[in-house]
Amino acid sequence: MRTELCETLGIEYPIVGFTPSEHVAAAISKAGGLGVLGCVRFNDAEELDAVLDWMDANTGGRPYGVDIVMPAKIPTEGTQVDIEKLIPEEHKAFVERTLRDLGVPELPQNVEERAGVLGWLHSVARSHVEVALKHPIKLIANALGSPPVDVIEQAHSHGVPVAALAGKAEHAARHVANGVDFIVAQGHEAGGHTGEIGSMVLLPEIVDAVEAPVLAAGGIGSGRQAAAALALGASGVWMGSTWLATQEYLETMPSSAAMQSALVDATSSDTVRTRIYTGKPARLLKTKWTAAWEAEDAPKPLPMPLQNILVSHAHNRLHEANDPQLVSMPAGQIIGRIKEIRPVADIMTELVEGYEQALARLDKTRG
Amino acid sequence: MRTELCETLGIEYPIVGFTPSEHVAAAISKAGGLGVLGCVRFNDAEELDAVLDWMDANTGGRPYGVDIVMPAKIPTEGTQVDIEKLIPEEHKAFVERTLRDLGVPELPQNVEERAGVLGWLHSVARSHVEVALKHPIKLIANALGSPPVDVIEQAHSHGVPVAALAGKAEHAARHVANGVDFIVAQGHEAGGHTGEIGSMVLLPEIVDAVEAPVLAAGGIGSGRQAAAALALGASGVWMGSTWLATQEYLETMPSSAAMQSALVDATSSDTVRTRIYTGKPARLLKTKWTAAWEAEDAPKPLPMPLQNILVSHAHNRLHEANDPQLVSMPAGQIIGRIKEIRPVADIMTELVEGYEQALARLDKTRG
Repeated sequence: MRTELCETLGIEYPIVGFTPSEHVAAAISKAGGLGVLGCVRFNDAEELDAVLDWMDANTGGRPYGVDIVMPAKIPTEGTQVDIEKLIPEEHKAFVERTLRDLGVPELPQNVEERAGVLGWLHSVARSHVEVALKHPIKLIANALGSPPVDVIEQAHSHGVPVAALAGKAEHAARHVANGVDFIVAQGHEAGGHTGEIGSMVLLPEIVDAVEAPVLAAGGIGSGRQAAAALALGASGVWMGSTWLATQEYLETMPSSAAMQSALVDATSSDTVRTRIYTGKPARLLKTKWTAAWEAEDAPKPLPMPLQNILVSHAHNRLHEANDPQLVSMPAGQIIGRIKEIRPVADIMTELVEGYEQALARLDKTRG
Repeated sequence: MRTELCETLGIEYPIVGFTPSEHVAAAISKAGGLGVLGCVRFNDAEELDAVLDWMDANTGGRPYGVDIVMPAKIPTEGTQVDIEKLIPEEHKAFVERTLRDLGVPELPQNVEERAGVLGWLHSVARSHVEVALKHPIKLIANALGSPPVDVIEQAHSHGVPVAALAGKAEHAARHVANGVDFIVAQGHEAGGHTGEIGSMVLLPEIVDAVEAPVLAAGGIGSGRQAAAALALGASGVWMGSTWLATQEYLETMPSSAAMQSALVDATSSDTVRTRIYTGKPARLLKTKWTAAWEAEDAPKPLPMPLQNILVSHAHNRLHEANDPQLVSMPAGQIIGRIKEIRPVADIMTELVEGYEQALARLDKTRG
């Protein structure tokens, strides 16, 4: 399982794994893929710096990357206090009422409130780039499409390529025109921010629309799916949801047992594409929390970044509730495949073996 | 490009083409695939009989099949007059107002009103089966999942296998338990009735859930996509939307130039999944008609079969309006690939060549 992406990024398999966990990212890189650490959880750039130091010490010299969340257009920013004034009282009341109705406990005294918002701000994402470029990263990926051109140039001046997510061929072409080096084609099946076009249709459209190598995202969780992606013209795959169900994830986030239990129980029908997480359509695990927002009396979600600010305290409480029915977590349709919590290395081995088996099956179809 | 399905069905390529046009179906069969004629347009079983006579004379002895629309549970039926009483006045008024607002002309005097409803009724679908089994058909496919067990047994007693659409693995397993021989795995991308799970995720789930061979539907329009489907474990592909943009389609439906023009112009973003066509979620070409049903003042679509009865007169008027912006047509996301109106044989050649190219590309990825 090799493509030109393996030479470009210095990896063994063209498997890129996005994860908010440094333990998972390091394990993906050590198993021959490219671990990409999500930075949005770091409100404080120094905290990210320390975690990247850990990555440098724990990836055995294997390449890794980072993922930021930065819109191409620089939005007006205020302080968090300014921004909070923009949130309607009706929305605040709905969130409070819903938490009460669902029986979500108050945050325990010993749990620190995590703001949960700043990573979505442009200035914070820029500080992530600054910090990451001091480390030997091999990729900066942007979850909101092309970053501003000066950020791309900044990365290139450090010899670091830039990847950008796209849910439409026209967006991919625009990203490449801005200087982006790789496109992550994010199909409808994917967790997190996602568009309407399914991977089967989107991927060849983007491959044909750009010269840049394309990574297939959305619905990829097995070697068969990786083979399908490469048959469609992808140079590699980008996987996210699969890594949530790993033993290494618990090392970074020990309080995620409820989330993992929910993933093991979920079928591919147990996700929903909704604006309640960030204000833009994103696919989440279906829980009582997502259902509450679909009720007749629920308000419409606010635009980005207000919606995430609105729900950030609720996310903390839901997380601490430690109940699989009350998880708020981006996840793709591929979670229907998750049957147990495994080490990253086992998943990587299965991916590569499944890929070879798919190719062997295709061999038998030759005319 | 061969699988065991080729032996089973006596075809050269494992490409099954669904179409309401006998000219297209015959051309698919003659080009080495299996043409499957949609029967829902025939209110009169004798009309279907005559068309199947034509198929027998024009397929050069190549195999072909038929597609019916029959729920597994037999619904209560009344006369059309009884049923029409169940349609609220508000809905009738909305349809009339919308047609007026969109400037859709009244039906010309010389155009016969087509009822458009009866093919959805159980009794009519049964008459389709009766008639079809008098012809040398090689497949009966049911667009609404498993037909009733006695219909499956009736087909089997004539040596004819039965295929059923499924949008979830659990549905596929139920169909096979009923005696269905092939599953058509209908991904979210597909035109017509479709579920929420994308082909990339759905297809391997269904392949693993049933022993029966699986045909991949939803997003398949090129050899690359056929290769992806077979990599995911499918035994063949089921294509629908692609055949709408063929020269042969015009031979059956000469007044479809506006629809074909709309398909050529459409991108993969120009479809919408909505209940306005039949009452169940179905993917349609996005036009001013579908937009009107998404407006704030639009009523909720009625359940099947009432919604199709409600809009059948409107469908006739929209069709006769001959305006690409006013088409009412089920179509999948793959229509973004349609750039011109071509003969069926050209599409088949391209599918087979594209398949071989995809396999050659995969060969280069071997470790």
